[in-house]
This record gives sequence, C-alpha cells and structure tokens, in this order.
Amino acid sequence: MNIAVFGTGVVGQVIAQSLAEKKHAVVIGTRDPAASKQKKTKDGWGTPFGVWYESHGDIRVGTYEEAAAFGEVVINATNGGGSLGALSLAGEAALGDKILLDIANPLDFSKGAPPTLLVCNDDSLGEQIQRAYPRLKVVKTLNTMNCELMVNPGRLPGEHDVFVSGNDEAAKTRVKSFLAEWFGWRSRNIIDLGDITTARGTEQMLPLWVRLYGVLKTGEFNFHVVR
Amino acid sequence: MNIAVFGTGVVGQVIAQSLAEKKHAVVIGTRDPAASKQKKTKDGWGTPFGVWYESHGDIRVGTYEEAAAFGEVVINATNGGGSLGALSLAGEAALGDKILLDIANPLDFSKGAPPTLLVCNDDSLGEQIQRAYPRLKVVKTLNTMNCELMVNPGRLPGEHDVFVSGNDEAAKTRVKSFLAEWFGWRSRNIIDLGDITTARGTEQMLPLWVRLYGVLKTGEFNFHVVR
Repeated sequence: MNIAVFGTGVVGQVIAQSLAEKKHAVVIGTRDPAASKQKKTKDGWGTPFGVWYESHGDIRVGTYEEAAAFGEVVINATNGGGSLGALSLAGEAALGDKILLDIANPLDFSKGAPPTLLVCNDDSLGEQIQRAYPRLKVVKTLNTMNCELMVNPGRLPGEHDVFVSGNDEAAKTRVKSFLAEWFGWRSRNIIDLGDITTARGTEQMLPLWVRLYGVLKTGEFNFHVVR
Repeated sequence: MNIAVFGTGVVGQVIAQSLAEKKHAVVIGTRDPAASKQKKTKDGWGTPFGVWYESHGDIRVGTYEEAAAFGEVVINATNGGGSLGALSLAGEAALGDKILLDIANPLDFSKGAPPTLLVCNDDSLGEQIQRAYPRLKVVKTLNTMNCELMVNPGRLPGEHDVFVSGNDEAAKTRVKSFLAEWFGWRSRNIIDLGDITTARGTEQMLPLWVRLYGVLKTGEFNFHVVR
C-alpha cells in the first residue's frame, strides 16, 4: 500500500521503517525535504533525520503535499502542536477524503517537563483536525504508548490495549485491520471508544503517561483495561 | 481507627461500609446531617442516604466539622465540584494536619454526559485542596476506578493498579498501608506517581474512564500499567 507518514521525528521514523519492512511504499512528508535530509545534528529524541534517512534508502521524503498525494492513507506522526500546520501545507486537495491515522498528541513543552496539553477537556487535537478537514476520515489511535510499542506490541508480554476513535465506521474498520496486519495488534486488544470526541479521553491519558515515564524510567509500558 | 468519610453518595456509602466492616469507627460528614438522614428519594447512583443509613447502625453521621474533628484520617468522597465547599465547612481547625485521602474527581455534568473536568491540565482538584489547606497532608488515590473496586480490588481477576500522589512521603507511606490493610491492595499494584501535581495525571484519566464505561456498559474495569 502507498502510505504517507507526516513527521521526521522518532515516531515518524519508527512507523515508516516498520511499514517499509512490510514492503509498503512510504513517503515521509516534511515542511522542507532538502533541509530534513541535511539535518545531521541531534535536537530531540531518536536519530537526526538526515542520518536516519541515509540508512533507509527504501523510504522517500517529500513535502507534506507530495506525501499526502502519494498515500492511500496518511499517518499524522508530527508533534501535536505542528499537526494543523502540516495538514495545512498538505492542502485539502491532496488530503481529499483519505483515512488519516492521527497518532499525535498536543503536548506543550513550552513551560518545561512534564508537558501540559495544548487542547483538552472539551476539545482534542483529533477533533480539531476533523473539523478543519471535514472530508478526511480521521481515526485517532496509537497515541497512548511509545512508538516502539505502536509497531510491535509483542515487545511487552501479556495483554495491553490500543484505542480507536473516529466518526467513520468503515474507516475505523480499515484502521483496525491495519493495526492487526501492519503491527500485530490482536483484535481483543483494540478498543473502539466511539466517535472522534472520544479522542479527548486518550489524549488526556498523556499527563499520566509522562508521569509514569518519570517514575518507571522507561517508555516500555502500556495500559491494559482489565475487565 | 477513627475515620471521617466526607460525602453521602454511593462512593461515601461503599467506603464507609467497608471500613465499618473492618471495625473502624466511621463518621460520615455531610452539610446537614438531619436532612441527609431524611433523604429517602433516589437522586443519583446508589441508595438514598436515608434508606442506606437505617441499615447501617454502626455508622454515625455528623457535620463536616464534627466528622473531621473525629477522624484521625479524612476521606474526601464528595462530588469533586463540592469538595472545596465541604472542606471549608469542616474548617481548618478540625482538619489540622491530618491525612486527607482525596478520592474525588472534579467532574462537570452541567453540559450533560459524558462529563468534562472542572479543573485540569495545569491544575487539579488535589492541588486545589492542598493549596487551600497547606497543613493538610493530601494524598490523591483511588480516583481512577469505581467504588466497588476501590474497596475490593479482588473483584477483578489478575493485576490492576491504584495510583498515589502527594507531597508528604510519610503520609503516602501510611496511605499505602491503608490501601493494603483496609481494602486488600497488593503493594506491587500501588504506583506512587510523585507529588500532588501528579494528580493531574490521574484526574485526567476520567475522560477515558467515562467513555470506557459507555462502551463496556459496566464500571467493573480498571487500568493496569503493563511493563
């Protein structure tokens, strides 16, 4: 499948690599492809994109618009604060009525760590995106765990869960099959919360997630809803 | 132990009954004890307090101030929106430097269900209480599950967790032992998140909790941090 991944950070890298390994054709979208390819200095988590890109010859890089036009589905792996800007650069024409897996979180590090949220309570990033692009089929998912677990839930033993929120039932059904086929999520561990407003629930897990990260000193954990 | 339980709703009822069964002396605090005892009509979850009270002769009812003065520890099981008002009626003199287990959530049902939060993101009810009563040793805990599970985690099979947030280490140590002795929480399932600001993390789980309640059609579930 042709897949667009928005974002050159560690989440985008891990998602793109995982999909390329499964022989999907991946184009990573970024604001300035030339600048991203030249970026060789570390400024966050993971590998500088320019270094990472050199060892991933099967993955292409383009503008957000080029990536969106290429992808049958689009995965939003940008920083949450930059997501609407990235989508705006992609443009409504290229995004069309595609499925967008929104895996971003609207974290605000401007006041230091642990971060707060840029939007919460009576709204969410998932809803903001859906409102801005009504034709897009936004499905919020995977945003409650670190990226290594997103693409390989088997790294953690036993039962743990991934949530799905979205307005379009057919799109959610496809996303659930993507989660299973691409990354190995078992259907019993995929919890459909309902429409896109339920993204408020999963985005607001991040304040707990970041504190657990501080206490456990690792991001290698996930939530399980025990029933 | 002498224990004050603030709140006559289902959470206060279940907590008070569980403690009384373990032979603790419990006084339930309420705004107007006479009115609470006469309340025989249903206006929320659980049993009308006046009906419940008649079958729980071992549990006394008093004003918030009387209950606080009586308790060696105080458990805040009021509606989150009414917690600061209840504490204000109890008064600083009666509250003193006691341990307050804050198990309330600042849910706002004024715009219908599912509720939003009255405070979140860069503040929490736990912090509001701690700021208002600096001598009180506020420990946020048990607020991420329904009350039947609070007092009997064994209702759910397997591993699932309870969180603890508070500024006073000695108070948290005592609360952890209360959780074990009163209700049977295993120490490996008690996760200390840090100071009272970490209550932002657990209070903001409620938006997910209420949606899971909608999907699962039961409150008989809890979260497990799988590592």
